[in-house]
Amino acid sequence: MSTSTTSIELTSINTIRTLAMDAVQKANSGHPGTPMALAPTAYTLMTRHLKYDPNHPNWIGRDRFVLSCGHASMLQYSMIHLGGIKKIGDDGKPTFDPAISLDDIKNFRQFHSPCAGHPEFGFAAGIETTTGPLGQGVANSVGMAIASKFLSSRFDADSIGTFDYNVYALCSDGDLMEGIGCEAASVAGHLKLDNLCWIYDDNHITIEGHTDLAYTEDVAAKFEALGWNCLTIDDANDIEAIDAALTEFKLTQNAPTLIILKSIIGYGAPNKQDTHDAHGAPLGADEIAATKQYYGWPAEDFLVPTEVLEHFEETFGKSGAESFDQWSSQVTAEQTRLIDQLQSKTLPENWDADIPEFPADAKGMATRGSSGKVLNAIGPQIPWMIGGSADLAGSNKSNLTAEESFLPGQYSGRNMHFGVREHSMTAICNGMSLAGLRAYGATFFVFTDYMRPAIRLAALMKQNVFYILTHDSIGLGEDGPTHQPIEHLAACRAIPGLAVIRPADANEVAMAYRSALASTDRPTALVLTRQNVPTLDRSIYAPASGALRGGYVLKDADNAQVVIIGTGSEIEIALAAAEQLESQGIATRVVSMPCCEIFDEQDAAYRDSVLPPQITARVAVEAGIRQGWDKYIGHTGGFVGMESFGESAPFEELYQHFGITAEAVVAKAKRVLNS
Amino acid sequence: MSTSTTSIELTSINTIRTLAMDAVQKANSGHPGTPMALAPTAYTLMTRHLKYDPNHPNWIGRDRFVLSCGHASMLQYSMIHLGGIKKIGDDGKPTFDPAISLDDIKNFRQFHSPCAGHPEFGFAAGIETTTGPLGQGVANSVGMAIASKFLSSRFDADSIGTFDYNVYALCSDGDLMEGIGCEAASVAGHLKLDNLCWIYDDNHITIEGHTDLAYTEDVAAKFEALGWNCLTIDDANDIEAIDAALTEFKLTQNAPTLIILKSIIGYGAPNKQDTHDAHGAPLGADEIAATKQYYGWPAEDFLVPTEVLEHFEETFGKSGAESFDQWSSQVTAEQTRLIDQLQSKTLPENWDADIPEFPADAKGMATRGSSGKVLNAIGPQIPWMIGGSADLAGSNKSNLTAEESFLPGQYSGRNMHFGVREHSMTAICNGMSLAGLRAYGATFFVFTDYMRPAIRLAALMKQNVFYILTHDSIGLGEDGPTHQPIEHLAACRAIPGLAVIRPADANEVAMAYRSALASTDRPTALVLTRQNVPTLDRSIYAPASGALRGGYVLKDADNAQVVIIGTGSEIEIALAAAEQLESQGIATRVVSMPCCEIFDEQDAAYRDSVLPPQITARVAVEAGIRQGWDKYIGHTGGFVGMESFGESAPFEELYQHFGITAEAVVAKAKRVLNS
Repeated sequence: MSTSTTSIELTSINTIRTLAMDAVQKANSGHPGTPMALAPTAYTLMTRHLKYDPNHPNWIGRDRFVLSCGHASMLQYSMIHLGGIKKIGDDGKPTFDPAISLDDIKNFRQFHSPCAGHPEFGFAAGIETTTGPLGQGVANSVGMAIASKFLSSRFDADSIGTFDYNVYALCSDGDLMEGIGCEAASVAGHLKLDNLCWIYDDNHITIEGHTDLAYTEDVAAKFEALGWNCLTIDDANDIEAIDAALTEFKLTQNAPTLIILKSIIGYGAPNKQDTHDAHGAPLGADEIAATKQYYGWPAEDFLVPTEVLEHFEETFGKSGAESFDQWSSQVTAEQTRLIDQLQSKTLPENWDADIPEFPADAKGMATRGSSGKVLNAIGPQIPWMIGGSADLAGSNKSNLTAEESFLPGQYSGRNMHFGVREHSMTAICNGMSLAGLRAYGATFFVFTDYMRPAIRLAALMKQNVFYILTHDSIGLGEDGPTHQPIEHLAACRAIPGLAVIRPADANEVAMAYRSALASTDRPTALVLTRQNVPTLDRSIYAPASGALRGGYVLKDADNAQVVIIGTGSEIEIALAAAEQLESQGIATRVVSMPCCEIFDEQDAAYRDSVLPPQITARVAVEAGIRQGWDKYIGHTGGFVGMESFGESAPFEELYQHFGITAEAVVAKAKRVLNS
Repeated sequence: MSTSTTSIELTSINTIRTLAMDAVQKANSGHPGTPMALAPTAYTLMTRHLKYDPNHPNWIGRDRFVLSCGHASMLQYSMIHLGGIKKIGDDGKPTFDPAISLDDIKNFRQFHSPCAGHPEFGFAAGIETTTGPLGQGVANSVGMAIASKFLSSRFDADSIGTFDYNVYALCSDGDLMEGIGCEAASVAGHLKLDNLCWIYDDNHITIEGHTDLAYTEDVAAKFEALGWNCLTIDDANDIEAIDAALTEFKLTQNAPTLIILKSIIGYGAPNKQDTHDAHGAPLGADEIAATKQYYGWPAEDFLVPTEVLEHFEETFGKSGAESFDQWSSQVTAEQTRLIDQLQSKTLPENWDADIPEFPADAKGMATRGSSGKVLNAIGPQIPWMIGGSADLAGSNKSNLTAEESFLPGQYSGRNMHFGVREHSMTAICNGMSLAGLRAYGATFFVFTDYMRPAIRLAALMKQNVFYILTHDSIGLGEDGPTHQPIEHLAACRAIPGLAVIRPADANEVAMAYRSALASTDRPTALVLTRQNVPTLDRSIYAPASGALRGGYVLKDADNAQVVIIGTGSEIEIALAAAEQLESQGIATRVVSMPCCEIFDEQDAAYRDSVLPPQITARVAVEAGIRQGWDKYIGHTGGFVGMESFGESAPFEELYQHFGITAEAVVAKAKRVLNS
């Protein structure tokens, strides 16, 4: 330990360390080594730099702390406990209870403890995002930093600093090895986010052994190439060096900062430190005893000296309260209203007033086209809605055409240019959303495969981001199988909590946006065509508002014998099939099912009114795989769709080749009627 | 054009350019600008450096060319056509027909043309991998380079160079912005792959506009930090500079080479060059006319001067034939036998001789544990099987314990250390597989989300790689929802052509490996538990060999009234439920269904023998979502599994909490019996 470290400092640091050791030991699983190594950093950051009022953990102006190496969760739980951060009540307001009590820590990794295996957003104030899957946290931190820049530029004209905050992320070699980590770093460097600081725990140890096995790049040089300011701390126990680096970060302009911290995993454990044995398993009772002896620490488990709590209150707590009070005295009434809207996820009144109703049109337009129109009708009404594309804005029709680009130094722009970085785009959207913005990302639907880990976290964290996903089937034509989604509707519908909406025409697109924007607790995937689809004549067919219930009877028939269910571009085929069947005397109902998840949430009476149990002859048509449709059509039902990867050819030929035609639907309908 | 460029050189280059322009124009879709820019590079590479015999395109010693920017596919089709590369016949031997004829080029992007929108592996000799999704091709190229190093180290003791080849990849800014591109570059630099050369088409143009919008990093500095040798060419038309850079690459030892090529997209198109208008759409008749005028080229479409074909034959063809002849005179009989095995995907006789049969054991072992045993029983028999983990080898039990690590300079090792880079691991496995190795990758099952784009390409390319995916459900316990797969079985089963096998016990694990290894045309995901499962007593239950048919009757009952279908760790629950039901007088059959895809491929008689149509009372139990099960149990069937994300707690508590218990299965069975 650095000679300048005082007794109370060291005691505080060792409290963090021993809480982690004890909690992992009691849970009989977890990761003690990183909290032991990073305790001095966490201590220094909290007590000397982090602007955070423990009594107001949802203060919008607070600095954000992200533990990207989420497996070191005990570090964060100790920080929250020692910092006295208060619990947020069900009303969204701080209570007098601790967000994490000592008992919670004793229940680390047990059911209903806020101290889960990895930090879970919503489980305790102070956890700004869910981490664990590596690279996600650092990418989230970029989104949070962007949000501060955007809000400040746009809603703080007098520069009183209402939305100014710094974002700190602690990360591991895994966060930086993951591709998403590099993508996010490239975005942050490009955007010159000088309110962003990553602290890289450079401990030379990975799970398989020494990092030399797989990771020998020059991290500092790489980050400098990405536009970062890089600092190195040679001893993770030197809190003055840590302090100096953090101070330098705060003085740095026009670049994010990477602090490379040379650390010793499991510091102080005489037999396990500096080995991967200290990484992901309890130290064991003997090693804990020996380690506590090395620290000069009593053997007692879960020991939290009173003076440590007082010390955090006098440093972290006091300075946070002062910052908050000062901020409160300055924030304007208008800003307060905005903050309320952001935090309660309330949309402005009349946000949807300009959403157009599209007139019937047989030629129609691509749903990506109507999406662009609806997005631009909503854009002016929700000034904190911000998003963009992974370099496909023109194809995705995802730009707000009246707005500027979000660029380095031009932080009031609302059109993000994420570059060809779908994964970090999605994780950055999560970060922007967690910071209160209404965020969206756009790309081709097939590239949800690249986005998937971050979509899953959006769903897990209940963030109401949305995705504009165009070129949604073989209907994209010549680009061929690498670009044609086949399994992606099924694969996206599989993600718990994600709403997947595939509208059939321009007016269903309008409804899809109404659903997506009105959502407060889940992400929405808007799945859209490249090719034109007719805008249905709603004087003949049911109103598009039925789409708000997920599925609805689009075209009914007296005493219908068969139900055809379709989505998106295949509704045109379903309607043509119905016409053919009717001409042959077979009464046919057509159900448009843009969103299975929303339909499944409707009450049984409604669901049965759309899909009457007595009509068992059912055919689904969708240019994707069958998986997921059996629950609506039964396993003896008819399905017209894809069974293989696609091909490269004009799309009309592909629909013929793969047999996704009205004739095929008619044939299946007759088969199920006769079976 | 460089003044030193001769007439025939320029004519050849302009032939490549105009073919691309004409083909895109005729198809009315495609990407002309990059082929126009990169034609001089392609020309120089082919005629002066690429070791490739057009009459023997499957020569294992050939240099590999990967077009990672797959949208520029016309560049590759022109190269294949002009180079006179021969078609491979159904017998795997070269024919006298061209791999790509001029007529094929005229049918660019049309049905059944080998000239698909993006290069498709298997469509034409010369296409070494399927590209289009950005970043995949460059990562594949790393795998191909690894394969050469490995084969040379291991099977060329006398260093006669049988497996020595270089790998060239052309890539775009998109390939380098994608996280997988950085991961793959980091792996290649770490491994010092000096047989690998990436040529970066630095044209400053992305789809959304100038790269300054989103991509301002210092690419050369970044790659140097990753351990690469970086060269810059200031003029993409300067073929002598290109030649010099390629020569320097071949002289460089202990590092891969990045050539940064400053180019002008759509070079020569007077109104569109150097703009994104030249990227992804036909130039239009007028612009083509003007461009041809600028080139001094006749207006005629698809013009291929005879002297150009002759020139390629005299350069590329002649030198390739000489190289092949020399190689043929040196290769040993033993090497020839090995090459036959690699290329025909034949396993050695007795490859499975040492696969153990596991004795019944109520305590059992985790299927990740039995997987490790089976893998190590197979390992010595298939010396060209190579793989590893994304830094979880100990948890995945994926190391070949008797083998060394594959490390820089230690290229005979068979244990790869991919680092925390699941995505590039998967794409590198594709590259190793395309180069003839039997490749595998390992990580936690939940991280298939990170691997997904490359798994999809493995399936599309019919590569028989396999994945060792452990920690397959809430059964992993305390790590919590970020690490607990819920939707991943459904999401993986959705991928066309991927076999997903989730064995129930150690002996099913052995069968799973038999299936995976015997596969020649598809990838296999082995989905394995962290926690122990009993090794079933096969004197009581049916032999595990039933697993080879995907699903089988594990425990039968006379006049069974109900069928319980389960997979993996839930078979234990299914059997316990059956016992309870039987004790209540309900005759119960238990079906183990480790692989739905293989079961679905069985003939109807077998499938009906396992799931008799007359037994409609069916319950499935699996610690994942229901999606995909309705087709076996009917939509009125019973399902016991997950409907939400998981939680952090000891796994036994989680199974209770989420109701995945024998009691729940019994209750569902009674419900479906009574309905």
